Amino acid sequence: MTAPRHDVLALGNAIVDVLARTEDDFLLAHGLEKGAMRLISEAEAEAIYKAMGPAHIISGGSAANTAVGIASLGARAAFIGKVKDDEVGRLFTHDIRAAKVDFNSPVAKDGPATARSFILVTPDGERTMNTYLGACQNLSSDDVTEEAVASSAIIYLEGYLWDPPAAKEAFRKAAELAHKHGRKVALTLSDSFCVDRWRDEFLDLMRSGMIDILFANEHELRALYVAPRTEDALSALRAENGVLGVVTLSEKGSVVVTRDETLTVPAFPIHELIDTTGAGDLFAAGFMTGLARNKSYRDCARLGALAAAEIIQHLGARPEKDLAALAAENGLA
Amino acid sequence: MTAPRHDVLALGNAIVDVLARTEDDFLLAHGLEKGAMRLISEAEAEAIYKAMGPAHIISGGSAANTAVGIASLGARAAFIGKVKDDEVGRLFTHDIRAAKVDFNSPVAKDGPATARSFILVTPDGERTMNTYLGACQNLSSDDVTEEAVASSAIIYLEGYLWDPPAAKEAFRKAAELAHKHGRKVALTLSDSFCVDRWRDEFLDLMRSGMIDILFANEHELRALYVAPRTEDALSALRAENGVLGVVTLSEKGSVVVTRDETLTVPAFPIHELIDTTGAGDLFAAGFMTGLARNKSYRDCARLGALAAAEIIQHLGARPEKDLAALAAENGLA
Repeated sequence: MTAPRHDVLALGNAIVDVLARTEDDFLLAHGLEKGAMRLISEAEAEAIYKAMGPAHIISGGSAANTAVGIASLGARAAFIGKVKDDEVGRLFTHDIRAAKVDFNSPVAKDGPATARSFILVTPDGERTMNTYLGACQNLSSDDVTEEAVASSAIIYLEGYLWDPPAAKEAFRKAAELAHKHGRKVALTLSDSFCVDRWRDEFLDLMRSGMIDILFANEHELRALYVAPRTEDALSALRAENGVLGVVTLSEKGSVVVTRDETLTVPAFPIHELIDTTGAGDLFAAGFMTGLARNKSYRDCARLGALAAAEIIQHLGARPEKDLAALAAENGLA
Repeated sequence: MTAPRHDVLALGNAIVDVLARTEDDFLLAHGLEKGAMRLISEAEAEAIYKAMGPAHIISGGSAANTAVGIASLGARAAFIGKVKDDEVGRLFTHDIRAAKVDFNSPVAKDGPATARSFILVTPDGERTMNTYLGACQNLSSDDVTEEAVASSAIIYLEGYLWDPPAAKEAFRKAAELAHKHGRKVALTLSDSFCVDRWRDEFLDLMRSGMIDILFANEHELRALYVAPRTEDALSALRAENGVLGVVTLSEKGSVVVTRDETLTVPAFPIHELIDTTGAGDLFAAGFMTGLARNKSYRDCARLGALAAAEIIQHLGARPEKDLAALAAENGLA
C-alpha cells in the first residue's frame, strides 16, 4: 500500500446552489418542509425559481462542499461528480478547481442540465432545499476509477447518491475498491428524508462492513434507527460493529461514538447565524482533515466545529475564509 | 403634470457580477488598478475568470443596484437596461423583478452575451472590477420610452452609460424627456477612470442644465475637476449653477453641496467591512428615496449612509436585509 495522493476522495452530486432569503410564509405557501431536501422536476424548478426572491448563485453539492472545505484546511481533496457541458456546469467546475480540489470527471455532452438546488434561507438561518438532479442522473460506476480510489486515504460518500439510480453503483464500486486497497470509507446520511427513502440499504451497508465512518446529524440518526430520542439512536449507533460514529447536534456541538467511547465536543462560538447550508458538510471536512493529520477524535471534532462555524456565518456552503489560517489562529493547525 | 408612478427610473448597464475574494498579489500579477473598473473583451473575460478564485454570482450593474435599493427601502423604482436572452440574462431579470423593480426592457435575441463584471475583492474590502459589456452595447434610445420617463419623479443615469456608444443616445433622450415633463435628472459619475474618459462631456451635461443632481465619490469628483484636493473639487462643484451635489467620502461620510449650503453627514457605523461593491449605488438609493419622501438633505444623506452600510457588510451589491425595516429601526422611515 503506497502513501495516498489525496487525503479524501469525495463522491457526490455536483450541484450549483441558487440561494435566496425568504420568510417562513413562503415555505408554508409552497408546502415545503423546513430544513429538508426535496427532489424536484425541471418544471418544479422553474416554478420555484420564478416564485423565489433575488438569489446568490454559489457552487454547492454536499460532498463537493466537503472536498472544498478539506482543501481550504490545507489537506488534499479530490471530487467525483457529474456536470453537463453548460454554463452552470462550467461554473461548478471553475469553482471547485479554483478551490484546489482535483476534479476531472468526464463532463456529460448531452442529457439533462447541470443540477441546481433552489435553497430558501429563512430568518432563523435554516435552509430548505429543492433539488433538480439533472446531469447527476448520469453519474455511473464508469466515473469511479480504481486509481483514484486507491490513491485516497478516505473515500467519502454522500447518502444523496442513493437517489439517482446509476450513482448507487458508483457508490458501491468506490466503497469496494477502497477496502480492496486498504482505504477507509465514510458515509454521510445527508438528510432525514433521504434516510427515510433508503434506511434499510444504509443499515445494510453499515452492517456488511462497508462503512468505517458514519457522519449524521441527530435528525438523520433518529431517522436511521426510527428512534424518537437522540439518546436511543446514539445507543444503537454505539452497537454497530467497527463504525466510528460522528453525530452533529447543531449548537449543542457533536458526539463521537465508538464501541468504547462517547466523546462530546462543544460547538464553536459564532457571531451571527446567517445560513446553515453546508454546516454538516464542513463539519465532515474538518473532522476528516483531523483524521488525515492523525489528530485525536476530540481535535478532529474541534476542527469540524471550526469549519462549520465559518460556513453558517455567511450565505452559501463554500468557505469564504482561508480555513487553514482560521485553524492556525485557533491552535488547531 | 400628473403624479409620477415611479419615484426613480434608473437607466444603466445590466450586469451580473462574478465576485471572488483575492489577495492583493493577484491584482499586481494581472496589472489591475485597485478600486477601478476596466472594460474587457470576451477573451479577457475568459482569462480573468479562469485565473480567479471560487465566485459568487450576484446580479449587479450600478444603476440597477440603485433601483433595487430604492425598492428595498419601500419606494417605487423602475429600470431600463439591456440583457440578452441567455442564462445570465434570465438571472438578471429574475433578480431585479424579484426585488420589485419594474423592468420591461426588450431582451436582445442575438448579438453578444449578457454583460458580466468579474469583481475581485481584496482583504481590505476594496473591489476591483473587470467588465465585459456584451449585450449592454445594444442599449439604444429606442429602449427609452416617453411614457416611462414622464411617469418617474427622478431619472437616474449612470456615467458608465457613456461607454457603449448607443447608450449615450439613450441617456440624452431620457434626460431631455425628463425635463420636458418637469422631472429631475440625476447623474452618477460611476468611476474616476470613466470620468477621465468622458470629463468634457460630463461637464457639458452639467453646464447645459441637463443634470439636476450629481452623485460622485471624492475620487470621481477630483477627476472631474482635475483637482488634486477634494476641497478644491468641492469648491468647483459648489460653483455649478443649479446642481445639487452629493459627494461620498467612504468612512468619512458624505457632503451635500448646493450654492448656499455645504452639509457634512457622518457614515453609518458598521461591524465589519466585507466588500465595498455597490456602496455608492446604495448611497444614491437612500438619498433619492429620501428626496421622494421630501426629507431634508441631511436625512436623505443619512438614509444613503444606512443603505451603503448594509451593502458593504456582505459580498455583492444587492441588499440582503429589508432596507425599509432597517430604516424604520433607525428612525429613518
